[in-house]
Amino acid sequence: MANQPAVAKTAISPRREEDFPEWYQQVIRAAELADPSDVRGCMVIRPWGYGIWENMQRQLDLMFKATGHRNAYFPLFIPLSYMQKEAEHVEGFAKECAVVTHHRLDIGPDGKMRPAPSAELSEPLVVRPTSETIIGATYAKWVQSYRDLPILINQWCNVVRWEMRPRVFLRTTEFLWQEGHTVHESEVEAREETRRMLDVYETFVRDHLAIPVFSGEKSESERFPGAVQTLCIEAMVQDRKAIQAGTSHFLGQNFSRASGIEFQTRDGRQELGWTTSWGMSTRLVGTLIMAHADDDGLVLPPRIAPTHVVIVPITPKGETRAAVHAAANNLAAALRSISYGGSPLEVEVDQRDLGGGVKNWEWIKKGVPLRVEIGPRDLESGNVAVTRRDQPVKSKEFVLANDFVCRAIEILDSIQHNLFDRAKQFRDANTRIIESKEEFYDFFTPKNPSKPEIHGGFALAHWDGSREVEEQIKSDLKVTIRCIPFTGTPERGTCVFTGAASPQRVVWAKAY
Amino acid sequence: MANQPAVAKTAISPRREEDFPEWYQQVIRAAELADPSDVRGCMVIRPWGYGIWENMQRQLDLMFKATGHRNAYFPLFIPLSYMQKEAEHVEGFAKECAVVTHHRLDIGPDGKMRPAPSAELSEPLVVRPTSETIIGATYAKWVQSYRDLPILINQWCNVVRWEMRPRVFLRTTEFLWQEGHTVHESEVEAREETRRMLDVYETFVRDHLAIPVFSGEKSESERFPGAVQTLCIEAMVQDRKAIQAGTSHFLGQNFSRASGIEFQTRDGRQELGWTTSWGMSTRLVGTLIMAHADDDGLVLPPRIAPTHVVIVPITPKGETRAAVHAAANNLAAALRSISYGGSPLEVEVDQRDLGGGVKNWEWIKKGVPLRVEIGPRDLESGNVAVTRRDQPVKSKEFVLANDFVCRAIEILDSIQHNLFDRAKQFRDANTRIIESKEEFYDFFTPKNPSKPEIHGGFALAHWDGSREVEEQIKSDLKVTIRCIPFTGTPERGTCVFTGAASPQRVVWAKAY
Repeated sequence: MANQPAVAKTAISPRREEDFPEWYQQVIRAAELADPSDVRGCMVIRPWGYGIWENMQRQLDLMFKATGHRNAYFPLFIPLSYMQKEAEHVEGFAKECAVVTHHRLDIGPDGKMRPAPSAELSEPLVVRPTSETIIGATYAKWVQSYRDLPILINQWCNVVRWEMRPRVFLRTTEFLWQEGHTVHESEVEAREETRRMLDVYETFVRDHLAIPVFSGEKSESERFPGAVQTLCIEAMVQDRKAIQAGTSHFLGQNFSRASGIEFQTRDGRQELGWTTSWGMSTRLVGTLIMAHADDDGLVLPPRIAPTHVVIVPITPKGETRAAVHAAANNLAAALRSISYGGSPLEVEVDQRDLGGGVKNWEWIKKGVPLRVEIGPRDLESGNVAVTRRDQPVKSKEFVLANDFVCRAIEILDSIQHNLFDRAKQFRDANTRIIESKEEFYDFFTPKNPSKPEIHGGFALAHWDGSREVEEQIKSDLKVTIRCIPFTGTPERGTCVFTGAASPQRVVWAKAY
Repeated sequence: MANQPAVAKTAISPRREEDFPEWYQQVIRAAELADPSDVRGCMVIRPWGYGIWENMQRQLDLMFKATGHRNAYFPLFIPLSYMQKEAEHVEGFAKECAVVTHHRLDIGPDGKMRPAPSAELSEPLVVRPTSETIIGATYAKWVQSYRDLPILINQWCNVVRWEMRPRVFLRTTEFLWQEGHTVHESEVEAREETRRMLDVYETFVRDHLAIPVFSGEKSESERFPGAVQTLCIEAMVQDRKAIQAGTSHFLGQNFSRASGIEFQTRDGRQELGWTTSWGMSTRLVGTLIMAHADDDGLVLPPRIAPTHVVIVPITPKGETRAAVHAAANNLAAALRSISYGGSPLEVEVDQRDLGGGVKNWEWIKKGVPLRVEIGPRDLESGNVAVTRRDQPVKSKEFVLANDFVCRAIEILDSIQHNLFDRAKQFRDANTRIIESKEEFYDFFTPKNPSKPEIHGGFALAHWDGSREVEEQIKSDLKVTIRCIPFTGTPERGTCVFTGAASPQRVVWAKAY
């Protein structure tokens, strides 16, 4: 009894505290979310990972439409000359552009396939890293008068930014996203739109992904290339780093000037349109994993899970097999008749010819919110064994099948709230108000040399607004300002680095 | 009274019979479906056009999931070496591939942006024209045993095939599509899958797009590059040409051999997987337009329309404006509470400050199935004026608003059936059983030199199965075999060109 308790064996190895980056890769592999491909930096999103993305899409799309937006589609390719129209924009993306130079293959003198020299494009095409320029050129044709405004359009698509150090979901050369692009009559309207969409993102991430965020504005050095203002939401994941989960940009008249989006105002003047853009991407899947997964694999908030309940029939004896499967399918049918978040509950019955333990562990690693086991003995009692993914693996609750059907939504809601509360507690516990430079450096200095990635978390500290301070801190600690948070009544103070006046505390962190 | 009746003015000019290709472009422009872009061959799909595509996606996706498929996502880029693995495949696509050769831009000696010479890829990447090869390479890693089969995956994505003579929706360099890719244990299963998905396509096109098709098999010369068998559905549009609306390929073991998809069979042997692929694309939007639109613009089958009912308040006098708008919004609310095809009815109230005639014509050109006008006088009577898009522009029916709410679904169903019947009558009237070579040549020879595109339509004629005959007919008449149709009991006969034996009639036509 006096022995040290043995460390319980976990489904994922290494555990989070042993090696967070490797744990992340192993969770993705174990849950069959994505695979690396032979194309450097490009991933294959497997059905389980894509199912999560589809749910994100469905929910965000509803929210976009509820705020008056419609979807459209613009070309994958951008003429090189378009990219150059906005100076900061091209500078921001030139280093990571995939460039199409030929439109045909042929056989070279060495007998091998090659881009056909006779099919070289007179103007190279850039694979879109984002679509401000090509969409701007289109809007310029659509907009003549204030009557044509606002334009409120979103696009779901793939984009490409060449990544030198790719990381599945978080930083991939190709990724999937949505990009909203709007044009407005006035600066006020465009700024309202920018904020409205950030609020949509914050609501979505909080209510569906169960992740609390700081929302605010980026400092100038972290702005989107070409934007006047970049708003963002920033989440903390379990190694205490920050991930930017969504951004909304007020572009002023910069892209309108570059693209020629001009309209006749209500009082007959010609004016440039005021534009915004905003986006969320498959990076969110990575954020979700890092925020909620544990040492046994993925943990999915019910609102975003492709499957809410998995039923595992336990059939050791051949003669009871049919009856157990029938009970499992009856239960599934009852559950599927229940609506959850506007659609029927998604229920899987795992009838594969494998042992119950093997099957159970697969679903644990995939993060399904509720697992239900039905065995031969349960047929008489009418009981089923229910396990919540947010509770320990062995914490079965035996309940009457009928009661489970009645309570399923309540339990899923409880899991959803619990995951949010857990993530919020973790973030709050690792967010510190910092009052001095020494304290700041200490907060971000790893204490254990064998775990160099573990540091303090989020620091709320006063900053004098200067770029010099940002650069010094980035170079010393790899820490950046994640956002200047929206607060009801900002608390004035003095910069912890220079002692100069500071209008409010900002959020500092190491970031993905 | 003895005068010739004047030709009624139509919203689209030219009319179909005057210049079909130009009419097609004008319908697209008037309905705001799509725009050409500055990137050659690439289109901008505008919200109204994309709304149609979203409805196609939603319905097809349901049907794919109901047949056991799940979605996933594979890389946009394909290493050149992958394309080469299947000889027929690379030959089929090499001439229309967009090739990425660089991953960065820089400033050249002339001060202009260019692909950075120091960032040339060691192996060029092809932008996917279709994904058999890259998906095959992934499946090869996933498949070890018969237990891993079948793999039933679909992907929604963009693909690129360089087009020298682009045509919006019908033939564009970039287009959107879905591509299903499956692997099976046996040839029988794979052939069943190929046919099952063709049946899904036929059902979808018939029940949702209201278009009748011939379904059958392609002749060898029209097969997908690398396939053993290509099945297709072929629609007739209003210039009597054929459009291939969907294809399903049995790939045998060709791509498995090229990619190394090998599995251990139930009896312990190693065998190559049997694969299929199947696809439908934004080309369907073009098919829909050409099948149903008329000289006043688009005509949308209700099951695929982004908006089912548009309500146009007619408010000549300022003082009745508020009351008319209120009545319009009340009617809209009542209609939106009705479910149609599993979702709420989509209703638009056009409150823009424009004349009723202008607004009405916009919705006519956009093809909305039902238009409802409410004016001040209707407030007392409780009546509204309803016009069906499949009936003449001025054929208003005055009905009580409440009765209209009760009958809305019935009227939409009637429009849906009417459009199908009309398309089927047109096709049947222009499909001829042909018994001789002379008759065949006559059928396909335009009678009016000023309308060289108008010819007979579909010919059902016996063919001896030889490629020589196909090539001769293609070179003489630009007519090809669209499909060898599935028929219950094929009628044997003799080839109308050679007199040799023929197992059944095939469908000949000019085609897009």
